[in-house]
Amino acid sequence: MRIRRTPSKLIRPLIRKLHPYEPGEQPKESGFIKLNTNENPFPPSPHVLECVKAAVDDRLRLYPNPTADRLREKLAKYHGCSPDNIIIGNGSDELLEMAVRVFVEPAPQSFETLSPPPEVLGRHTVQYFLPSYSLYPVLADMYGALKKPVDLNPDFSFPNSAELKRRKHWNFYAALSYITTPNAPTGTPAKTSTLESICKLTKGIVILDEAYADFAPENALQLALKYPHVIVSRTFSKAFSLCFLRVGYFVGHPEIIKAMHKVRDSYNVNGLGQVAAEATLEDLEYYRKNINTIIAIREQVTHTLNVLGFKVVPSATNFIFVKPPGRPAQEWYLMLKLRKILVRWFDQPTVRDYLRITIGTPEQMEIFLQAVRDILNNL
Amino acid sequence: MRIRRTPSKLIRPLIRKLHPYEPGEQPKESGFIKLNTNENPFPPSPHVLECVKAAVDDRLRLYPNPTADRLREKLAKYHGCSPDNIIIGNGSDELLEMAVRVFVEPAPQSFETLSPPPEVLGRHTVQYFLPSYSLYPVLADMYGALKKPVDLNPDFSFPNSAELKRRKHWNFYAALSYITTPNAPTGTPAKTSTLESICKLTKGIVILDEAYADFAPENALQLALKYPHVIVSRTFSKAFSLCFLRVGYFVGHPEIIKAMHKVRDSYNVNGLGQVAAEATLEDLEYYRKNINTIIAIREQVTHTLNVLGFKVVPSATNFIFVKPPGRPAQEWYLMLKLRKILVRWFDQPTVRDYLRITIGTPEQMEIFLQAVRDILNNL
Repeated sequence: MRIRRTPSKLIRPLIRKLHPYEPGEQPKESGFIKLNTNENPFPPSPHVLECVKAAVDDRLRLYPNPTADRLREKLAKYHGCSPDNIIIGNGSDELLEMAVRVFVEPAPQSFETLSPPPEVLGRHTVQYFLPSYSLYPVLADMYGALKKPVDLNPDFSFPNSAELKRRKHWNFYAALSYITTPNAPTGTPAKTSTLESICKLTKGIVILDEAYADFAPENALQLALKYPHVIVSRTFSKAFSLCFLRVGYFVGHPEIIKAMHKVRDSYNVNGLGQVAAEATLEDLEYYRKNINTIIAIREQVTHTLNVLGFKVVPSATNFIFVKPPGRPAQEWYLMLKLRKILVRWFDQPTVRDYLRITIGTPEQMEIFLQAVRDILNNL
Repeated sequence: MRIRRTPSKLIRPLIRKLHPYEPGEQPKESGFIKLNTNENPFPPSPHVLECVKAAVDDRLRLYPNPTADRLREKLAKYHGCSPDNIIIGNGSDELLEMAVRVFVEPAPQSFETLSPPPEVLGRHTVQYFLPSYSLYPVLADMYGALKKPVDLNPDFSFPNSAELKRRKHWNFYAALSYITTPNAPTGTPAKTSTLESICKLTKGIVILDEAYADFAPENALQLALKYPHVIVSRTFSKAFSLCFLRVGYFVGHPEIIKAMHKVRDSYNVNGLGQVAAEATLEDLEYYRKNINTIIAIREQVTHTLNVLGFKVVPSATNFIFVKPPGRPAQEWYLMLKLRKILVRWFDQPTVRDYLRITIGTPEQMEIFLQAVRDILNNL
């Protein structure tokens, strides 16, 4: 038996036609000011660096704790819940992905010809607001689930449950709804009362993706402890300056969390990431100060850009979403890049006119604002 | 609308009934000699520890390189291939899991009543030898794929392609076949020529899971560069003492690797893991010495256990698979645990009579052998 194998035929059609998520660009040259991936401009605390360094020893040969027990215990104390309410991920992205596997049935091909009622469609549906984190539709496509994007209000604020009912766009039966709160890439905060009313209306799992919640005036963590179908997603990457070590987590009902553990890789969280995250929780004062500094810079930069003619969406995160004056956003993105400043521009319908700008250090933002003035003078 | 939500009903039935993989136990008390998870008894090299320590700085706030470019370049040089042949995983377990998503269609329920021909079944089938790595059937179940376990020869050696044809057990159309080589938990090596003949017979993807290949007299890496449907899986956890930092990789055809990248989390490999793996490749002499030491200890312990009445399966790995005398293997496992020595016992049909024992340091193996003699004296 001699078989000729075409590589592409070995790949599932679903994956062949998948458009993967595109992370923010990483400049190959040095010298760029990176305001494009919402990294924290401040390093981890000296205590965290010390603890991680001290753990770089013989133990690297050993498997890390598979369920990150110590970290879950510390987080449970921090949030006033039980370790059984918590699962740790290799970044929250990993958990967001696993959630589709655990909660959403792939859509059968027969749906293309039938028109099943919302209850039936719901079991196969991933729902999310538009614009929000562009990973969600990719995850739905990856697992052959149906996508249900729901428009935010024109000013990027969240519709409340009455509006969602009136608009009839929300599928109350969706197996999985992702809500980025505060939203990305717009930075818009959601009131916990609004989120609670949306959760109450929704029958399937709702993930409140709170990657940026530490920069916002309120968060909705308590909803994850109040409702069995609500999960809150958090990360150590943004407020806690630990992107490099990949630690995120979900808080939710113990039975839901237990189901997530079943599909988790045995050793999904590297050991030094666990050490770093534990040490972070011992040094929250340091991080609160950074967060307050970032918020203060955000407000200053917002004010200055407003004066310079930018439309700035009010932000509750460590980035701002702005509509630049005079030229299309894409041109601004390129003009800034020429000046060695990287910001994020999304080539997508509702956000094409905007730039997303991470809040950097005061020095970085001064250079950024100089570049902006320079561009404006040459328009 | 008021909805009562039963948590279990929010979970897909497939996941509800899933039996997850069980990693080796991690003793809560200290003082155990851990010969149960095939960790390397020797620490990473001083150069590796130094490089990782030096990287614990401001950069922790930044995302790691999403595609681990430098590591892939170094591995490409090491294996004489291109970086496009390589994808890095959060341990090889992550990649083994992703492979099901990329190559295997979930089985439709209609299969329970129909009896489709092997070609059709194949697209939905995960195939593997029995006994081998017990993760594979879990991965198949997780994605609703069909499982096709194929018995090894009674002495745990690999059947060659002629035997597989004669036995008619192998599904030549299986979308994904995992072959652990050398095998785990038995330690049995496979000749590259045998593996090549099996690959040639198989139409779907074949993953040669070479987690332990560095301890074996030969490996089959070249098959991954010769055949578009063959992938070789490697890890830094075993020979390179880096379990804690989670780095593994696949080598395969560029189109196949590209498809794997599409379902990969953007930042799946933590930054310090990348640094450590890169430094490892700069210090291979150190690891070759460790590997040779482990092989020498393995041969000594094999000899001693044979003399003491154990049946030891010839091993090409950093562990041995043994049938203890006098008492059932489970009792031996418990008697050793009482003496603060952890080995692995699998409660599964073909391997219930055996223990898997990781090769530790000379000192650890001396204590282990003392415990064995002590148990034998008290039988």
